[in-house]
Amino acid sequence: MVLIDCLQYANWSEKIFRQMRAGGVDAVHVTIAYHETFRETVLNIETWNRWFAQFPDLIFHGAWASDVALARETGRTAIFFGFQNPSPIEDDIGLVEVLHKLGARFMQLSYNNQSLLATGCYEAEDPGLTRMGRQVIKEMNRVGMVVDMSHSADRSTMEAADLSERPIAITHANPYDWHPALRNKRAEVIRAVVQNGGMMGFSLYPHHLKDGSACRLADFCAMVARMAETHGVDHFGIGSDLCQDQPDSVVHWMRTGRWTKETDFGEGSADTPGFPPMPAWFQDNRDFGTIAGDLKEVGFSANEVAKLMGGNWLRFFEQGFVPQS
Amino acid sequence: MVLIDCLQYANWSEKIFRQMRAGGVDAVHVTIAYHETFRETVLNIETWNRWFAQFPDLIFHGAWASDVALARETGRTAIFFGFQNPSPIEDDIGLVEVLHKLGARFMQLSYNNQSLLATGCYEAEDPGLTRMGRQVIKEMNRVGMVVDMSHSADRSTMEAADLSERPIAITHANPYDWHPALRNKRAEVIRAVVQNGGMMGFSLYPHHLKDGSACRLADFCAMVARMAETHGVDHFGIGSDLCQDQPDSVVHWMRTGRWTKETDFGEGSADTPGFPPMPAWFQDNRDFGTIAGDLKEVGFSANEVAKLMGGNWLRFFEQGFVPQS
Repeated sequence: MVLIDCLQYANWSEKIFRQMRAGGVDAVHVTIAYHETFRETVLNIETWNRWFAQFPDLIFHGAWASDVALARETGRTAIFFGFQNPSPIEDDIGLVEVLHKLGARFMQLSYNNQSLLATGCYEAEDPGLTRMGRQVIKEMNRVGMVVDMSHSADRSTMEAADLSERPIAITHANPYDWHPALRNKRAEVIRAVVQNGGMMGFSLYPHHLKDGSACRLADFCAMVARMAETHGVDHFGIGSDLCQDQPDSVVHWMRTGRWTKETDFGEGSADTPGFPPMPAWFQDNRDFGTIAGDLKEVGFSANEVAKLMGGNWLRFFEQGFVPQS
Repeated sequence: MVLIDCLQYANWSEKIFRQMRAGGVDAVHVTIAYHETFRETVLNIETWNRWFAQFPDLIFHGAWASDVALARETGRTAIFFGFQNPSPIEDDIGLVEVLHKLGARFMQLSYNNQSLLATGCYEAEDPGLTRMGRQVIKEMNRVGMVVDMSHSADRSTMEAADLSERPIAITHANPYDWHPALRNKRAEVIRAVVQNGGMMGFSLYPHHLKDGSACRLADFCAMVARMAETHGVDHFGIGSDLCQDQPDSVVHWMRTGRWTKETDFGEGSADTPGFPPMPAWFQDNRDFGTIAGDLKEVGFSANEVAKLMGGNWLRFFEQGFVPQS
């Protein structure tokens, strides 16, 4: 069984890389930019390059879907780069190709707020894709960078799903009708994404879970089963949103960036401004097996569990990362 | 009579600075950024610093309204900096204060397209100010940087006029009901700006003029008279949008920046992609006297003409540029 987690943003360390190996995780899509400019993103790539040099037996930079097979053959984890915000391309469409060359494979068109490309899910209104957004989607399609709408607003997401010539992704979110958070996705949004061949990764971040940190794994798996019944099992995977070992200063950066001088608590509140504790059944990369086990218990076949735990993401990687010919 | 032009973007040269002196122009708000990043904007400031050093008898860097009086006393033209796009602050609210310190006194919240702050007048829909836009207006109010909505969409402009605690400006545009261009302003937009104490500068750029380059000065002055009757003479001035001596590559940059790989013709067209010829009666800085003369002929008093040609902008500079205490 291929095991792919399509979103993590941990405070990376040898410990975490060893946990990936212990958990048998073949590939992880890691966030390398929340609000970073192009130059700052390149610095983050340099940091990853140092980790790749330091831990060559544990991890390597994944560029293509075939690197997932390579990871399995060599007992390592392939690390794929992505952005949760288009800030790395700044206002420059030419940076899409440059950053794809540097390894970027996913880019969110917005992160909670309005971007130059699309509206974020925290804005009061969503007028859909901008003029630049339409141009950038075309360019992302051309070079093979996946449009990720995890933190975007509904109309922008549906327009992106329709406009994009290649399937798009919601790498980490859950259905709104299971847990009505601003970050979770309404049925029509999920439908638009999957109808166009897209993928959604289920999030294990407590603010996206029914009952938060106390969410029961059985409830999570029942939700997965319902989604697979409604939209087809081929369109779903995991995007855990694991932010392991991060200090709370990082969630402050994620929410506030440099756009306000006030404190924005995002999904948190003044009383609980920090990272929420992860559910007991998902503490780190060693816990994917537990989820796979419980997915079987709610009725998925072994083949379906394999799709959900990574097979679907692998197919999506195969379709999504290569330049258009 | 104080003479202030509240928008020019010429291909600056000794010739043009001498024409400013020949025309008796006391102050000009010059554009120093269309799509430039912070760093690129600083390079443009350095270029201006070299001009200030090279032509100290003709021009100097204007920082405060009192520099208009200094310009008159010393027979020079005060140059005030502004941006037609918020690109110089990138995604960083802290750059508002930094750029005010470097002399920036006007910043448009958007330039034709959606920005991080507000919608531009070429977007299909306008959801109003963004979350960041509301924060940045507050910060601009605090430090004394004027909100300029010349290239913004209607709803964003009206919301900015209402939200801003200090009067805002449309530095260069004309009424939409005189010449229905996307860049010209509907009556309710002008009303929102002036009701909040704001100013509008009439543009002499042919795409904003009835009959374009063939616009008659008498028609222009009649429009000014109608606007003064409707909204009060105290709220208007000149923002010529003079792009003297610019090669057509510059209008391509203004329209296309780095946001698309296609060519956007903006107010032009594939047949006429370049700068349009200016009207015969306004070729350069020596022609303001002609306009002042014809304003008298449509019935304005000498005092009213003085307000329109610079007195109103001077009052606005006095109110707008100093930090809030």
